Amino acid sequence: MEFNLSAGMFSSEEKFSPLDTAKTYDVLILGGGPAGLTAAVYCMRKGVSTGIIVKEIGGQVALTAGIENYMGYRHINGVELVDKFREQVVQFGIDYDEGASIASIEAGEVKRVKLEDGRVFSARALIVATGKSWRKLEVPGEEELTGLGVAYCTTCDGPFYTGKDVIVVGGGNSGLEAAIDLARIASSVTVVQFLDRLTGDRILIDKMKGFENVRVLYETEVTSINGSEEVESVSVRNRKNGAVDEIHAKGIFIEIGLVPNSGFAKGFLKLNEAGEIMVDCACRTSVPGIFAAGDVTDVPFKQIIIAGGEGAKAALSACNYVLQKS
Amino acid sequence: MEFNLSAGMFSSEEKFSPLDTAKTYDVLILGGGPAGLTAAVYCMRKGVSTGIIVKEIGGQVALTAGIENYMGYRHINGVELVDKFREQVVQFGIDYDEGASIASIEAGEVKRVKLEDGRVFSARALIVATGKSWRKLEVPGEEELTGLGVAYCTTCDGPFYTGKDVIVVGGGNSGLEAAIDLARIASSVTVVQFLDRLTGDRILIDKMKGFENVRVLYETEVTSINGSEEVESVSVRNRKNGAVDEIHAKGIFIEIGLVPNSGFAKGFLKLNEAGEIMVDCACRTSVPGIFAAGDVTDVPFKQIIIAGGEGAKAALSACNYVLQKS
Repeated sequence: MEFNLSAGMFSSEEKFSPLDTAKTYDVLILGGGPAGLTAAVYCMRKGVSTGIIVKEIGGQVALTAGIENYMGYRHINGVELVDKFREQVVQFGIDYDEGASIASIEAGEVKRVKLEDGRVFSARALIVATGKSWRKLEVPGEEELTGLGVAYCTTCDGPFYTGKDVIVVGGGNSGLEAAIDLARIASSVTVVQFLDRLTGDRILIDKMKGFENVRVLYETEVTSINGSEEVESVSVRNRKNGAVDEIHAKGIFIEIGLVPNSGFAKGFLKLNEAGEIMVDCACRTSVPGIFAAGDVTDVPFKQIIIAGGEGAKAALSACNYVLQKS
Repeated sequence: MEFNLSAGMFSSEEKFSPLDTAKTYDVLILGGGPAGLTAAVYCMRKGVSTGIIVKEIGGQVALTAGIENYMGYRHINGVELVDKFREQVVQFGIDYDEGASIASIEAGEVKRVKLEDGRVFSARALIVATGKSWRKLEVPGEEELTGLGVAYCTTCDGPFYTGKDVIVVGGGNSGLEAAIDLARIASSVTVVQFLDRLTGDRILIDKMKGFENVRVLYETEVTSINGSEEVESVSVRNRKNGAVDEIHAKGIFIEIGLVPNSGFAKGFLKLNEAGEIMVDCACRTSVPGIFAAGDVTDVPFKQIIIAGGEGAKAALSACNYVLQKS
């Protein structure tokens, strides 16, 4: 039994098998970003029966304008790279489900995954690769101009703003690191901070202040991001005196944090303070037979190639687990 | 100052800067496989001064016939993929040295790397990514037919032998895992074991014996690998009675271990029993400011995308270290 996917990115000729509620899979993968898709390729090549539950194919990668730090491509955009990853998974005719959210998971010799639409799937091993979501400003223009000047990742997108004026939103460690990274290459960096002080590490604050082309606007919030084809300016409001201003900029980096998509694992898998699933260097979680990979975990640094590597590790760990049990 | 590289794989038009013995680099990378090259891209993009010392560009990848498990390419050969990785490094005009072996490294606020030709280079942080070398049989035909039926990695090359007769050399865990992997897809698997018993884990031995298409030849050694364009047969000799035989096979997987290229680090960095450099999940070694990534480390599973991910982690850890010190 096969069906056509309706998602826009997919060609109507491509077919997957639907996930089967009656089957016990060897490995069930939760998540369709770089970690989940890499895990899928590794599991399928190992010949274990595999299913994958994807909310949004590509995860954060699909939101990235240009990628220059994924090895093998000097330059590729996020959607193109996701498409290549997906093609590699599709060729194996994997059992696939897209769109639903995970409600809860249950351990035991056979693990169960309950979706919010009520369906329940079973597997001997799970790989949780549900990623993180960027915390959004939720102001007018943000969504429309994402990838057109609105960015969330300086390591990925910073170099595109060489010699340009940019804004960084957020005065915590992510914001400071972004400002330091950008100060070396951008013409000017304006840090917009909601509070009356920076909340990041002293060492980062000092380092940032060493750059003459960085300024900080305290007690300030972004009210809208403006531009038709690309970002042209950002409107801000002083929270103390209500004064409004419009700052001309080609790029705005929103660095107000990421939210791990781990809600369904709370009280079940061991999470750190940030809500990330804790794993060892072989991607094992606190529950035997449940593995995790990529940005939803406490692995340091969030990058496509790192998530891919972690996905491969989790898959090989899960396959070893299944083979030893069978 | 720039010079042309002489290595065959390089176009004569490509230029690098030579490594400078008078300079103290921020980061010096040792090794030019997937981990080292990925680390180089990440360091250069961070804007820290970076040098790379490569013995053989591409490492084990350059020896792999076809790669189907590197995300982004459904199928690519090893040399092509190495070439793409290298291109990505070259674009930054990195300081580069190729061909020399590392004699020793020295710690301190500034780390020193001594090459066997006597040159000494300095850096604030080091990334050791010198990889592993496959242990070779060293029999006639092995070198000539590498990539043409002689293989070292079942995860990489196994699927190319679907429905064919293959030989696995080695009765330890790697050999047993290779035989189990191949038994599912190959027509027949002959395991050639030097000793009178298998030395791998019981669980793997039992699992392998469950396959009817696997046989083991004990106390047997390979004397030559035969074929003109590709592997056609393998000659073996019984070590007990001296009987010789010729086994027809399309593939021979040599699974007698890998040797980490960590000799220069002995007694200096903490190594495990296998001689691998021990690292934490952020690629830190036992010496502050020295990071390690890829197959030379104790990271589980040796795969291109895993090495790439570890290289990125090591680079970001090294950059953080350098920025905090400066």
